[in-house]
Amino acid sequence: MLVKRYSDVTPTTYDNGRSGVTMREMITASDGAPSFAMRVFDLVPGATTPYHHHPWEHEVFIVRGSGVVKSEHGDRPFSAGDTVFIAGNEPHCFVAESAVQFVCVIPAPNACAVG
Amino acid sequence: MLVKRYSDVTPTTYDNGRSGVTMREMITASDGAPSFAMRVFDLVPGATTPYHHHPWEHEVFIVRGSGVVKSEHGDRPFSAGDTVFIAGNEPHCFVAESAVQFVCVIPAPNACAVG
Repeated sequence: MLVKRYSDVTPTTYDNGRSGVTMREMITASDGAPSFAMRVFDLVPGATTPYHHHPWEHEVFIVRGSGVVKSEHGDRPFSAGDTVFIAGNEPHCFVAESAVQFVCVIPAPNACAVG
Repeated sequence: MLVKRYSDVTPTTYDNGRSGVTMREMITASDGAPSFAMRVFDLVPGATTPYHHHPWEHEVFIVRGSGVVKSEHGDRPFSAGDTVFIAGNEPHCFVAESAVQFVCVIPAPNACAVG
């Protein structure tokens, strides 16, 4: 069993900090997690994650804040307590209206369901 | 893409509500999630999840509150922002000292990594 403090995990900062998006890899294969990885993202107000797509899915829980998630089918608002499921290959990005924190889980690279 | 509100998901209540533990299945295979399922648990102060083990792992994010997670190796305190990784077959339970909410992700039943 492994308990980790958010403040003990070094964040990854994109675009030299200009993007306003940071990510912490909280539970990964290096911890012995075999099937999926759990990350925590923090977005400053107005920040956006890249609009992109990839074969793997996202399962997201909004811890705090509000904003919209963009997709090919339009924008969907989100706020604290919501979950967002993004299927594989769906273009998407998250736009923070306030400061936002969310948990984002992705399958391990070798997980069969992704293959 | 699917956004769900916490308040729109009917909770599962254990032991006719006496346990003080409720669970909401937020993202599951019925939503098209292929690899893992995301649930949200709420515990009233003093509530405990069952002390048990199973072959699959848990990846947990503590949204709010504090308590301890019990294992064969003793108790580990947790509070908001922490993650807890419980490997397959590790006996465990969560004990809430305050009102607690956490996200708990488990592999899909047919996920290869579970074997």
